[in-house]
Amino acid sequence: MSPIVAQNVSSNNDSSTPYFQHSLELIAGEFSTATAPSSTLGQLLQHVGDTRKEATGDQTSVHELLVDISEPRPIPFVLSFNNLTYSVKVPRKMALPGFFRWSDGSAAADAAVVGNPLAAGDSYFTRTKMLLNDISGEAQDGEILAVLGASGSGKSTLIDALANRIAKGSLKGNVTLNGETLKSRMLKVISAYVMQDDLLFPMLTVEETLMFAAEFRLPRTLSKSKKKMRVQVLIDQLGLRNAAKTIIGDEGHRGVSGGERRRVSIGIDIIHDPIILFLDEPTSGLDSTSAFMVVKVLQRIAQSGSIVVMSIHQPSYRILGLLDRLIFLSRGQTVYSGSPTNLPLYFSEFGHPIPENENKTEFALDLIRELEGSPGGTKSLVEFNKSWQSMKHTRDSEPDQLGLSLKEAISASISRGKLVSGATNDINSSLMVPTFANPFWKEMVVLSKRSILNSKRMPELFGIRLAAVLVTGSILATVFWQLDNSPKGVQERLGFFAFAMSTTYYTCADALPVFLQERYIFMRETAYNAYRRLSYVISNALVALPGLIFLSFAFAMATFWAVGLDGGLSGFLFYFLIMFASFWSGSSFVTFLSGVVPHVMLGYTIVVAILAYFLLFSGFFINRDRIPGYWIWFHYLSLVKYPYEAVLRNEFENPSKCLVRGIQIFDNSPLGEIPSAMKVRLLQSVSKSLGVRITRSTCMTTGLDILKQEGITDLSKWNCLLITVAWGFLFRILFYFSLLLGSKNKRS
Amino acid sequence: MSPIVAQNVSSNNDSSTPYFQHSLELIAGEFSTATAPSSTLGQLLQHVGDTRKEATGDQTSVHELLVDISEPRPIPFVLSFNNLTYSVKVPRKMALPGFFRWSDGSAAADAAVVGNPLAAGDSYFTRTKMLLNDISGEAQDGEILAVLGASGSGKSTLIDALANRIAKGSLKGNVTLNGETLKSRMLKVISAYVMQDDLLFPMLTVEETLMFAAEFRLPRTLSKSKKKMRVQVLIDQLGLRNAAKTIIGDEGHRGVSGGERRRVSIGIDIIHDPIILFLDEPTSGLDSTSAFMVVKVLQRIAQSGSIVVMSIHQPSYRILGLLDRLIFLSRGQTVYSGSPTNLPLYFSEFGHPIPENENKTEFALDLIRELEGSPGGTKSLVEFNKSWQSMKHTRDSEPDQLGLSLKEAISASISRGKLVSGATNDINSSLMVPTFANPFWKEMVVLSKRSILNSKRMPELFGIRLAAVLVTGSILATVFWQLDNSPKGVQERLGFFAFAMSTTYYTCADALPVFLQERYIFMRETAYNAYRRLSYVISNALVALPGLIFLSFAFAMATFWAVGLDGGLSGFLFYFLIMFASFWSGSSFVTFLSGVVPHVMLGYTIVVAILAYFLLFSGFFINRDRIPGYWIWFHYLSLVKYPYEAVLRNEFENPSKCLVRGIQIFDNSPLGEIPSAMKVRLLQSVSKSLGVRITRSTCMTTGLDILKQEGITDLSKWNCLLITVAWGFLFRILFYFSLLLGSKNKRS
Repeated sequence: MSPIVAQNVSSNNDSSTPYFQHSLELIAGEFSTATAPSSTLGQLLQHVGDTRKEATGDQTSVHELLVDISEPRPIPFVLSFNNLTYSVKVPRKMALPGFFRWSDGSAAADAAVVGNPLAAGDSYFTRTKMLLNDISGEAQDGEILAVLGASGSGKSTLIDALANRIAKGSLKGNVTLNGETLKSRMLKVISAYVMQDDLLFPMLTVEETLMFAAEFRLPRTLSKSKKKMRVQVLIDQLGLRNAAKTIIGDEGHRGVSGGERRRVSIGIDIIHDPIILFLDEPTSGLDSTSAFMVVKVLQRIAQSGSIVVMSIHQPSYRILGLLDRLIFLSRGQTVYSGSPTNLPLYFSEFGHPIPENENKTEFALDLIRELEGSPGGTKSLVEFNKSWQSMKHTRDSEPDQLGLSLKEAISASISRGKLVSGATNDINSSLMVPTFANPFWKEMVVLSKRSILNSKRMPELFGIRLAAVLVTGSILATVFWQLDNSPKGVQERLGFFAFAMSTTYYTCADALPVFLQERYIFMRETAYNAYRRLSYVISNALVALPGLIFLSFAFAMATFWAVGLDGGLSGFLFYFLIMFASFWSGSSFVTFLSGVVPHVMLGYTIVVAILAYFLLFSGFFINRDRIPGYWIWFHYLSLVKYPYEAVLRNEFENPSKCLVRGIQIFDNSPLGEIPSAMKVRLLQSVSKSLGVRITRSTCMTTGLDILKQEGITDLSKWNCLLITVAWGFLFRILFYFSLLLGSKNKRS
Repeated sequence: MSPIVAQNVSSNNDSSTPYFQHSLELIAGEFSTATAPSSTLGQLLQHVGDTRKEATGDQTSVHELLVDISEPRPIPFVLSFNNLTYSVKVPRKMALPGFFRWSDGSAAADAAVVGNPLAAGDSYFTRTKMLLNDISGEAQDGEILAVLGASGSGKSTLIDALANRIAKGSLKGNVTLNGETLKSRMLKVISAYVMQDDLLFPMLTVEETLMFAAEFRLPRTLSKSKKKMRVQVLIDQLGLRNAAKTIIGDEGHRGVSGGERRRVSIGIDIIHDPIILFLDEPTSGLDSTSAFMVVKVLQRIAQSGSIVVMSIHQPSYRILGLLDRLIFLSRGQTVYSGSPTNLPLYFSEFGHPIPENENKTEFALDLIRELEGSPGGTKSLVEFNKSWQSMKHTRDSEPDQLGLSLKEAISASISRGKLVSGATNDINSSLMVPTFANPFWKEMVVLSKRSILNSKRMPELFGIRLAAVLVTGSILATVFWQLDNSPKGVQERLGFFAFAMSTTYYTCADALPVFLQERYIFMRETAYNAYRRLSYVISNALVALPGLIFLSFAFAMATFWAVGLDGGLSGFLFYFLIMFASFWSGSSFVTFLSGVVPHVMLGYTIVVAILAYFLLFSGFFINRDRIPGYWIWFHYLSLVKYPYEAVLRNEFENPSKCLVRGIQIFDNSPLGEIPSAMKVRLLQSVSKSLGVRITRSTCMTTGLDILKQEGITDLSKWNCLLITVAWGFLFRILFYFSLLLGSKNKRS
């Protein structure tokens, strides 16, 4: 029976591309028993093969988007919401002197509260703020419901309430689809929520971005070629054909325009062709042409059989023409609800007719704003709206339910090709849909592929880290060039090791901004269960490894022989291994921090400070046996301690190595200044007293003595290595938990 | 004769505040020979006294701004620009593989260049890009001239060209005011340029912000009370009465709304009541109501006798009603020039009539965009505009010059109270106006006052630095608690000093973001000669000192006695002094860096890396006499060297202080492990060999020996202190030069 939605899309503009002439077929996936009419599918497949030729590119013309979908909507969905009420407790502001008085919209609300200081649930320190106050309404498929109002009026809160992003219990009232209350799990399957920010990887192309979304969200049962076809259909639906091969871009890399970026964001969320689409200010930050094109795309999505609910600050005249229902909010209350065409009548009956030629919504919003500033507030308008609503309902009392039950409607919709993600034709099992589209290993592969692609497109990021390591390595190599075996040389070796091991950790901090940027994308993606958090953590670690190996090798090569470290090849290998372990634990540490700090400057400051304390407690500045007892715990927490001790053991553990020989014993001591001949005589007399024969070449201090002096006695070098690696794993695990806790998705 | 502009501002809304009922009088200053009618001035003064009572606040209502100014404009100014042409050389893009092809508006332009690869001035590596191509037009006082077009069409470039922000020689064509070419100096006096970004101090109130602008820009001859009056008049003119006592605010501090902030930015630039006002996208980032209110304010400014020239991306219907002349640009070429009312006629004659009810500018911009994407480009429209212009000029050939010469016009304007800044009634001497409004000392006072006010309002910034110093101080104090006089104790003292002296420098890095933020405001302010760069550098340094003294004292108190440092009170005083010197040189260093790095992350990374190298070369990790010759220069550059050596000298210079006594000589040596009795015997035999009596209590190593061992022999402690202080001054001087070089204000 599928595809029902073989929409005959016809272009209303001669110059539009031929892509819009083929039918927009929505792929129902392999689970769909029906087969498409071969001509249509053939056309589509041919088109997929053709795309490569056509990637010459400018921005989409407005008129390419002006395509009409004449197909009448046959499957009725009605999203109703009744008496939604939501309030939060906010700390009560104390009476402040003049210049601390804020000039925000809540001033009047504050005044109201002050007049009646202890409303239900209020205390002297908190007051209840009504974010939503008894909001009702409905939205139908094929239509766009727009929520309008000033900032702070409750637009986003209403969208959140409908999208089930407010924790149960906090929100009063009910939200139903075709008369049935929606379960959270069900809603996640049939809906999508588009956030206001475009969180996209800047170095992926539009097509790649959508393809990764398809791989994450479309069911594993769908073949790769069908996923590709879905992406191609979506690119056309979004009007992104000309930008398909362009990278998203960022400040440093030129990419697609702001409007195209917003459409890509929408595309990611509707990859599974949801029945309900929620959008929080999809047009914010766009110029009016781009904004219009975005809403035009939304209209097209609605007409493909979806309910679109969006908030919008102030629609332009053209955008207003695309909206089917409006809800005006003011301080959490409805001040108008109905179609745009009824606006003039409503306001003229209210006694404020909209002047000819004036933008209707601009006028309405200004009027509301003015009322908000007036002593009576918007109460009169709220009351007027209530009576208007009841009047309207008596005038045209259309039936709320259009017949089909939710199950029947969803089932019919699925057979028409909607809900590509995970849903099957059997509505009962659609509730049994797996939480994640892909198995664990597949997620790992796709995530790793994406990470590697990103790194490849931004080689400068790794380049900077490599440069930092090489520069520091070269400076250390030349400063500590061929250290000798003398008491001074020993001291310098200690300094070199302390500095070198800290460097590895500090270098890792440079990756912080990238991690932080990625975290937002991660939060967006896991919000709709694109993949398991664990796959992300593991793939993130695995992809980092080759780079870390390279950095460690570069640093080890630059310093080991130049400084004249001991142990030959096996010594070098261990040196390289411990470098690698430090880079690993350092990058794990920074990754973990990126999961908990809110922004990059704070993160960097914290990393630098903590690493400084790690160095202070590593055993270099003060030996373990001299650290006061109340601080010894920090010594064992110090990440730098373990690699520092490991390299010292690697250097000094050789018992045959002599570091102080014969009269060198007097170096660095008060007797260091006396003439050499005198030192020899002195040595002889010491020799006699001790009853041991000591000559000029007798070894006085071995490496083991040094280790003892430095208090490095508790761990073998291999144990140090193991502990360093274990720290790395520990921080990855902590990172996992930080992601679990950090990506909470609901208001309380 | 003044005040001519006694605008009878009447409110069209009953609820508006009484501020709009008094006359908006522009203060001509003491140099104006005319006196105001006493009743009006009395009203105004009374009003100034009254403002304090009325600071209750919400946002401005739209209708408060809708005030009519009925006064006809009597002094004609005409800004004409003819055949403005400006091109830059850009690197030619090489043919890149598929995914690197950008989808930007310049694709067609690129193609045109590829077709004709070697145009005049082009090479194989660069091509010439026309940013402005033969643009002509004019603007009159009392009117707003708006430049429209897509991003990249040359809007900002045209504004820059008119505002003389493009270096001479690069720009072809001419710009005249009343027929005379404007000299740069002259233009600076009579015009203002408002940038797109709001660079304001977040913690100052609107009134304070404008008052500081008045103090910087209005002439010294004007009394403080008159400056205050000018600010009050401006607050009303900008519709900011209700927000006057509100702070500007930032992410962390709630302040005025975006539209109000933009109006404050405009207010700062028009504090001297300029004749020409240039604005680069004054409405960008604002919602349409705020944008309308900003343009309404601009209209009011124009009607007070100024020429307003602004760029705007896409004006709403209501804003369009406020604009008097439009220039539409497309890729640097004029595609329409004329009044908004002629737009429909123009486009219908061009063959693309604007549909009924469609937003005219939206339609026009969409059409232009479509033409840009078409093969022929906008050539047809450019040609059509040319013929339309010549037709129009024959139809209504109004005289270009309205009689008054530039000198006469400016002179008349000044007597009407315009040009409060520095201009006098005598036009010849107006060119002799001093570059800066205030003398050096006055600038210092005002700048310092502002800095102190800012710091007071953000105590958390200093709090964080103090906390960092105290936490590190306490950790160091407890880790190195009461160090003993033994070889180990000496080693630990060295470590403590190295760590402590680095800490002072690292703590300074925390101030980087604040400095960077301030730099942008500095650049904005010095661009119009608000004050001398030198005053800023000196005031910046002076204001920082008390905080640095406090930090040094806190750190010195926390550590000196806890660690058990030597020297008693005089030792502590020197220790405190050298701490202060390090904080001084560290903050100077960071201040200097903030003048040269482009953004905060890079700055922080550089500071951390450089400080690490400073520490490496300070003499702690490797003694001066052991540093390879090719690196010794860096040792002397190391900021950390000098305070480190100073504290070591302060600690160890006391010749009576003994650090190694009797058998302690064997500590830290291979003989350290033998029993005490044996050590005593050994000491006796050494004593005999040397022919010196050495007992258990004989001092073996004094502090001087330690200094010798550590290679600290070249500078006395007072010299170290002096050099540290000198570094601080050097970096302040470098900071001054970085500001000189960094605040270039013109395109090349």
